[in-house]
Amino acid sequence: MSRDDTDHYLIAPDPKAGRLTRSVTGFDETGAEQTISVVEERPLTIFLNGQEIVTAMTIGDYPEYLALGFLKNQGMLSDDETIKGVDYDDDLETVVVRTDGETVYEEKLKKKTRTSGCAVGTVFGDMMEGLDGLTLPQTSVRTSWLYALAATINKTPSLYLEAGAIHGTVLCHQDRPLVYMEDVGRHNAVDKIAGWMLSEGVSGDDKILYTTGRLTSEMVIKCAHMGIPVLASRSGFTAWGVDIAREVGLTVIGRMRGQRFTCLAGEERLVRDVDPAHVASEDRKHRRKGADA
Amino acid sequence: MSRDDTDHYLIAPDPKAGRLTRSVTGFDETGAEQTISVVEERPLTIFLNGQEIVTAMTIGDYPEYLALGFLKNQGMLSDDETIKGVDYDDDLETVVVRTDGETVYEEKLKKKTRTSGCAVGTVFGDMMEGLDGLTLPQTSVRTSWLYALAATINKTPSLYLEAGAIHGTVLCHQDRPLVYMEDVGRHNAVDKIAGWMLSEGVSGDDKILYTTGRLTSEMVIKCAHMGIPVLASRSGFTAWGVDIAREVGLTVIGRMRGQRFTCLAGEERLVRDVDPAHVASEDRKHRRKGADA
Repeated sequence: MSRDDTDHYLIAPDPKAGRLTRSVTGFDETGAEQTISVVEERPLTIFLNGQEIVTAMTIGDYPEYLALGFLKNQGMLSDDETIKGVDYDDDLETVVVRTDGETVYEEKLKKKTRTSGCAVGTVFGDMMEGLDGLTLPQTSVRTSWLYALAATINKTPSLYLEAGAIHGTVLCHQDRPLVYMEDVGRHNAVDKIAGWMLSEGVSGDDKILYTTGRLTSEMVIKCAHMGIPVLASRSGFTAWGVDIAREVGLTVIGRMRGQRFTCLAGEERLVRDVDPAHVASEDRKHRRKGADA
Repeated sequence: MSRDDTDHYLIAPDPKAGRLTRSVTGFDETGAEQTISVVEERPLTIFLNGQEIVTAMTIGDYPEYLALGFLKNQGMLSDDETIKGVDYDDDLETVVVRTDGETVYEEKLKKKTRTSGCAVGTVFGDMMEGLDGLTLPQTSVRTSWLYALAATINKTPSLYLEAGAIHGTVLCHQDRPLVYMEDVGRHNAVDKIAGWMLSEGVSGDDKILYTTGRLTSEMVIKCAHMGIPVLASRSGFTAWGVDIAREVGLTVIGRMRGQRFTCLAGEERLVRDVDPAHVASEDRKHRRKGADA
């Protein structure tokens, strides 16, 4: 691994960070003692002003980005909300996102609670809101970028390569990966990227989101909320994920392995500027197997 | 595939069931049209009596088992609760689980709502409840069973082999797989098994739970709630999952690939009755790669 390989990144994984993994000793198939590196998993409770929203299970890095991105991707923070502060408390395992006044979400919740007793189950039902009338930009995506991204990302030192059992998502511009987040929690990796974008005021317009996970409805909706027109993955699709991508005009590319991929929505953005026959296959070492449950 | 291979099962996957997958047409890397089989994903809202609990994203088979198992594994149904009925409505995409009187969970929720306005975020915080003082039986597990299970399960016709992008969990007795559930939603497969066990009055005492997914805290807690002393997986561990397994006395075996595995808790249940050197490696076709995000 040359130094250059991580120089692309604004944020790259830090597989050697002591807080994120732990050595655990057990036994292998022969009964011999075996010590392996295992990823951490911690609860983090996210508050929006005075309202407790959810407890996420996370590896624990970038809690502020996770909280901000989660709330944004759930449609609980609208574009005109002013964020006054994001306070993380390590001991209490909480993050409080404070806005200037009550959010639209809190007002809605109050009404719901008044009319139906409690709105426990409906909290997560509003994700599709705010996607009506969304127009994602008609940027072009060169397939050479996709191949280059997959190759770079697979070889980037990561918690996945170090300890496995983790999910990765990468915000990219053309053939350059910018922010690579990993997490044990299902969608935390993508929420951390959303939080970073919100904090830094970065637009999704000219970006590509690459993920190791499946292209489910939730993943597609999050990508749309982030305003990113292209979502690419090593993994497969769900039918509803494809339906939503077609509805909102998002390009989804799945099953990216070596030369191969499948595009099930937004094909018109693709520019096939490279002959797949000239793309290298993945070497064995960097193939992911059953990685990201 | 000989008929015998699925004869083991009480419930096996039904990859040809029309409702569970859909053919979707897109384009491959060369720009040629390509039609692939993609798993369905539908919302299912679960009610406990009059209380809306959660909307799960599911492939849609066995909704009654999913609802029952979810509530049971969340600790929302105690052992002495009498289930009066489970009503699934296909059009409304809802399942209502009805009990004889108000459940302990509903009473607690009412109190919480009264004292703190609304209990939105805390609903899922009670999963560890009911695990205090749990004693899982000190059964033996032969490693020959584990190898036989992995080999049988990997070759069983499944939605995974048909369409990919899906998660599988199998309830097993010794070397025999009994109930094989798959789902697109993270923990729905294991909840459907819990629902089946509850409906059929099946004990977890002498069972093994095999999963394609990672051994996270949530997975370990669910397995303990089901009273199953052994949890085995192709995938890796999280540190907290291992901690909880050690606390409740659960055996967790991960990274099962061909001859190899790692046991990080409950090693004392393992009986190594077969030489790993004599176990066949997995053939390429049945290896899972990045399957279960």
